[in-house]
Amino acid sequence: MSDGDAAEEIMCATYRALCSHGYADLTMQDIADESSKSKAALHYHYDSKHDLLCAFLDYLYERFVERTADLEGDDAHERLLGLVDAVLTERDNREEFETAILEIRAQAPYEDGFRDRLTRFDDHLVAELTGILETGVADGTFDADVDPEDTAQFIVTVLTGTSTQRVTAGQPVECSQRMLADYVETNLLADPEALET
Amino acid sequence: MSDGDAAEEIMCATYRALCSHGYADLTMQDIADESSKSKAALHYHYDSKHDLLCAFLDYLYERFVERTADLEGDDAHERLLGLVDAVLTERDNREEFETAILEIRAQAPYEDGFRDRLTRFDDHLVAELTGILETGVADGTFDADVDPEDTAQFIVTVLTGTSTQRVTAGQPVECSQRMLADYVETNLLADPEALET
Repeated sequence: MSDGDAAEEIMCATYRALCSHGYADLTMQDIADESSKSKAALHYHYDSKHDLLCAFLDYLYERFVERTADLEGDDAHERLLGLVDAVLTERDNREEFETAILEIRAQAPYEDGFRDRLTRFDDHLVAELTGILETGVADGTFDADVDPEDTAQFIVTVLTGTSTQRVTAGQPVECSQRMLADYVETNLLADPEALET
Repeated sequence: MSDGDAAEEIMCATYRALCSHGYADLTMQDIADESSKSKAALHYHYDSKHDLLCAFLDYLYERFVERTADLEGDDAHERLLGLVDAVLTERDNREEFETAILEIRAQAPYEDGFRDRLTRFDDHLVAELTGILETGVADGTFDADVDPEDTAQFIVTVLTGTSTQRVTAGQPVECSQRMLADYVETNLLADPEALET
């Protein structure tokens, strides 16, 4: 087994262990139990649970960047909604997994390694959305008054709130999805009458 | 000291202990250390840390309901923004305290007592916002097309996301505050021209 294969196996085992046990009670043994490796072998690759989870967040980030790079859509409006839907409904978003991620989020103020990596997720998403909004403003899809960065930040706030509410109150994502689509249409799309003049 | 005074003192001690220690590592001894009571005296009032924190969430809820009942404002638009600002900038929102609350939120899927109480906060806020929006739609302040309940839910999602991002990424609240005010103006306020006809 190459180092890359070993790392991939450990990452998949970490995902399953987080879904089963959550973050707070997770042990290296729980992760070993989900893989073909011993706890000692895990410690050969990662010094501590904290190091392993930092590597896991890096792994999630790389996959997230790959997924957001592949978005299709005929124009900026479609690409924006596609990115929002990708985040709201991505296949990894099992409720148990989102719960574990929220636990890790809640530890971010105490753990710089978590905080830096979670901030990188949000920064990437804000940058992707800002790029789409800038393109859309430049080609007239979106209104010239739209502030791409503030708007991108606002959308990420809505996505973060949706995830937090899904985990903590079992709130379904559909209301956010509908309200965001409505927000994009009413606040961002260029006025068709203005385009005609 | 009456039972009510004792309860109030324990709640204030719990607040300070959560700010100092966070939730995960909090012990009954930490709370006792912030009060004039012994750990044994705390256990006389509350069986466990879990019970004490449930009582603390009830206490926060009662104060929250009182605060939201006192909102002033000449019309539904002012009252809506007043409620949003009250939640975003309330004086208890020390960063350490919000961090502890997010930790409790992240435990909600495992602890029904937390989940029920946190859901009650969100439900109360949605109900208050829905009431303001319904009044505003009825008196023509807000557009007749506004769906009060969906809109209230969306605003609560933004507020939840703002709090989560403040805790986990140190994101300031000003962007959300500005974007929400803009959302209310663009999406909710009745079109002044339509009013004139």
